Amino acid sequence: MRERMIKIRLIAALLSATALPATAFADTLVHNVNGIQASKDGKIERFTAFVISDDGRIVAILQAGEAHPRTDYAIDMQGAVVMPGLIDAHGHVMGLGLAALQLDLTGTSSIAELQQRVKAYADANPGLRWIQGRGWNQEMFAEGRLPTAADIDAVVSDRPVWLGRVDGHAAVGNTLAMELAGVTAATEDPDGGSLIRDAAGNPTGVFIDTAEGYVTRVIPRTQPLLLDKALGEAQRFLLSEGITAVADMGTSNEDWHTMRRAGDAGRLQLRIMSYANSIETLTNVAGTGPTPWLYDGKLRMGGIKLYSDGALGSRGALLKQPYEDAPDTVGLPVTDELAIKNRASRAAIDNFQVAIHAIGDLANEQVIATFEELGDAYEGERRWRIEHVQILDPADLPRIAEAGIIASMQPVHQTSDWQMAEKRLGEERLGAAYAWNSIDQSGALLAFGSDFPVEHPNPFVGLKVAISREDANGNPQGGWIAEEKVDLGTALAAFTIGAAYAGFAEDQFGRLEPGLYADFIVIDRDPTAVSPTMLAETDVLETWIGGKRVYRAAD
Amino acid sequence: MRERMIKIRLIAALLSATALPATAFADTLVHNVNGIQASKDGKIERFTAFVISDDGRIVAILQAGEAHPRTDYAIDMQGAVVMPGLIDAHGHVMGLGLAALQLDLTGTSSIAELQQRVKAYADANPGLRWIQGRGWNQEMFAEGRLPTAADIDAVVSDRPVWLGRVDGHAAVGNTLAMELAGVTAATEDPDGGSLIRDAAGNPTGVFIDTAEGYVTRVIPRTQPLLLDKALGEAQRFLLSEGITAVADMGTSNEDWHTMRRAGDAGRLQLRIMSYANSIETLTNVAGTGPTPWLYDGKLRMGGIKLYSDGALGSRGALLKQPYEDAPDTVGLPVTDELAIKNRASRAAIDNFQVAIHAIGDLANEQVIATFEELGDAYEGERRWRIEHVQILDPADLPRIAEAGIIASMQPVHQTSDWQMAEKRLGEERLGAAYAWNSIDQSGALLAFGSDFPVEHPNPFVGLKVAISREDANGNPQGGWIAEEKVDLGTALAAFTIGAAYAGFAEDQFGRLEPGLYADFIVIDRDPTAVSPTMLAETDVLETWIGGKRVYRAAD
Repeated sequence: MRERMIKIRLIAALLSATALPATAFADTLVHNVNGIQASKDGKIERFTAFVISDDGRIVAILQAGEAHPRTDYAIDMQGAVVMPGLIDAHGHVMGLGLAALQLDLTGTSSIAELQQRVKAYADANPGLRWIQGRGWNQEMFAEGRLPTAADIDAVVSDRPVWLGRVDGHAAVGNTLAMELAGVTAATEDPDGGSLIRDAAGNPTGVFIDTAEGYVTRVIPRTQPLLLDKALGEAQRFLLSEGITAVADMGTSNEDWHTMRRAGDAGRLQLRIMSYANSIETLTNVAGTGPTPWLYDGKLRMGGIKLYSDGALGSRGALLKQPYEDAPDTVGLPVTDELAIKNRASRAAIDNFQVAIHAIGDLANEQVIATFEELGDAYEGERRWRIEHVQILDPADLPRIAEAGIIASMQPVHQTSDWQMAEKRLGEERLGAAYAWNSIDQSGALLAFGSDFPVEHPNPFVGLKVAISREDANGNPQGGWIAEEKVDLGTALAAFTIGAAYAGFAEDQFGRLEPGLYADFIVIDRDPTAVSPTMLAETDVLETWIGGKRVYRAAD
Repeated sequence: MRERMIKIRLIAALLSATALPATAFADTLVHNVNGIQASKDGKIERFTAFVISDDGRIVAILQAGEAHPRTDYAIDMQGAVVMPGLIDAHGHVMGLGLAALQLDLTGTSSIAELQQRVKAYADANPGLRWIQGRGWNQEMFAEGRLPTAADIDAVVSDRPVWLGRVDGHAAVGNTLAMELAGVTAATEDPDGGSLIRDAAGNPTGVFIDTAEGYVTRVIPRTQPLLLDKALGEAQRFLLSEGITAVADMGTSNEDWHTMRRAGDAGRLQLRIMSYANSIETLTNVAGTGPTPWLYDGKLRMGGIKLYSDGALGSRGALLKQPYEDAPDTVGLPVTDELAIKNRASRAAIDNFQVAIHAIGDLANEQVIATFEELGDAYEGERRWRIEHVQILDPADLPRIAEAGIIASMQPVHQTSDWQMAEKRLGEERLGAAYAWNSIDQSGALLAFGSDFPVEHPNPFVGLKVAISREDANGNPQGGWIAEEKVDLGTALAAFTIGAAYAGFAEDQFGRLEPGLYADFIVIDRDPTAVSPTMLAETDVLETWIGGKRVYRAAD
């Protein structure tokens, strides 16, 4: 059929010889914008117009004073502030969507309030076989203690109840949930997890890290209809927050199928950089190497997410020295070091990217050492990632940049955690805690995210926290460990080009420049011209992906 | 962006006003063909030319004497015989590919030869951790008995060996394989399966139906590289046989991912109508209803494959009366009747198609009853399928058409099985055995296939057997139960439009008519003008899918 191709070229030549304007087919000029974006090294750049091709990519970006090309279409933005779509480098897409469909317990200030909310939700949803919720944090409870099965039994005892802590690293069930799971005083703590027990040794109902599996494995599988709804919810939510792309950290087989259903049906708008939740999922789905970009740059499985330790709140983070407020423990390794190395190596053999969760200073050191070792074994640009990098031994900090590791961090965790972190570690071990600026200055790449649904995905709150280290109430005034603030350009880079680079996506999106997709947002203020507090309150007016508007606040 | 669409229409109008020929863009005329195809009701139709559009679909089909439209391109077939691509309504795509990569034991005529072949293969593949093969049939063995673990140990004892019977319903392992599986004299027969035991009660090494799971679950998972290779092998093999589409009966999660990898990479040429191997796979993959056609009509998961009973050869087929040659058994239900009903119902709720394997007369009656019941419960055109329909109680035969059930049958099974079937059933119970003509005459739709890799996929052998009921040696002369032969038009319909209709694909392929994909083959003889023996020897010269040539014998 070689002739056919030649003929098509002839037709194209013929077409270009017609009376059409002498520009490309159906380009669109977006002009009169107050455009702001960050370069990879954290400089703020300005632009006033750009041109989008019919396939949704940027053709040209123009600075003030540059002549506009002739295009078929033009959109006058009337001076609105335009930025590249923000990218969340660490989130849980299906978790966000399912949480939106479950009982939301964030902000619960007492066990009494938790009881009230559980009862109201159970009464409102008589058809649910399991009552599931998420978002409690005992640090915020007036009672100053963990909830128990008995607390929940007091309001719901005829259906199993399962409520996740805000960080996902602990959960509490009622007695019926424990019975269905077969958990008794005789149940042993699993590797990488534990049951909270009372003085008599009986489980209280709180399950830490891998122990959650005792209950979660008896919860009926989420039906695909609900998964489809959850993805839709997550997508709508993120687009309305100005997020156009995310790294999905721990995509399961079911999650992947859900994403593909959306893609196949033309319902996938958000861009998802997927990291599989296991070697099995990774190799089943992607086979012998990362998938191609699917659905016009909307979906790609490029690597794996592994866990080194748990979280600080539940004292699962693995520390070099015992917890200040629990001197009998140094935390729990979720996966032992050798298993992490084997899995990371299995992924790297086939050119998959490796992202490892590490919170405590010992976990971070072990993961750095793992990547140093893998870096010797595997050639090419691997872009190893550590997720969270919360507590570092200052002595280990320079090794991150040296090993070419990307620091994937979530600014808002700092404002959620700082008081708890002081209790867990004491002041002496905070020398490289949530150390964004030191890591940036050391030469490592920062990629910022929110860890949604653990935190709210609002990236403007993330940007505000990144430059202020003050929480929503302005505490602590002047910022916690203020020298670890970064400037706005650095924060914006970490939420755009840095996050894209961290997902091998910088040739697809992350900036408005020729060849990349036209993913941008229209916002109600200029981030460079407002206070941090005002920055956090930025409203997203419109969100565009691939040159198409997918969200408008007025809708 | 409404303006953009208007402008595009203007450009199209402009284009059509240029000096191009006044026909559609890049149509191709295929002319000077001796074209043959079957109508849905089994009539042979002739054509001499057809027009393919640039998107690979048929635009026009022309009979002798009709004027040819003007097109940009033309292909002169110089009088060659052209038919629609043949469709196998029941095969195992990955099984065929993996078998091509494993030890092929088909045609082994003695246990001594089996030993020799196993040893040669093991010696030739020192890197394989497990020696796996398939295709033996004790009915063909000079020794007249089943192979045993001891037989295999005599040639390979240092690596586990696992060899499937030709029909997949039995397998033999060596002692090491049994040890790795933890199988001993104390191991009980599972539901839906059994271990062959010696007089002392010790397992001999032969595992029937679900008992195979004892060993298969300890075989390391097939790596994705091998799965990708296997799909490529299967595809090449089938295209070279003139098969352009298949119903994949029992697609696993891993199989599906493999097919999608091929589709995503542009390597998928064969059209696959996928039936999931479980409710879990079905709902995980497809969610709340059949997937759309993916990759331009190449892949769709539309339903589920369930098993009612086993196979006749291994006496797993479920009979109304005991086996003639084993009066202590009526066979084994693989899945109990209630579980089948529940699963079929679960699939039907979400508009998935249900295909159920049934071989024995009791299994067939139970499945017919299940579909009668489901037909009352679920509206719309459901196209229930029974796979194999081998042994029917004549009293049940009319119920197939009455319940709107499609009979998915494999002609070649008849020639492989007839002597064995006479032994298993005796002559009295063969009144509706492999009863293609009676089923066709009753008004039920026939869909033909091969059950590859159980049988060779060659569809011309299938066509020959369908019209002759004689095996490769012409036995029995005149055909076994000769009144069950069908005519060539009926057989061809069952291998094309019937098989497409059975997969809800008649709007995509199965005939050469406007709107359907241009899937066709060029063969070396006219099936209507040769003897059955000559028909079986037809050579496929070229295979085209979606207007593209994907196989040429000369290559």
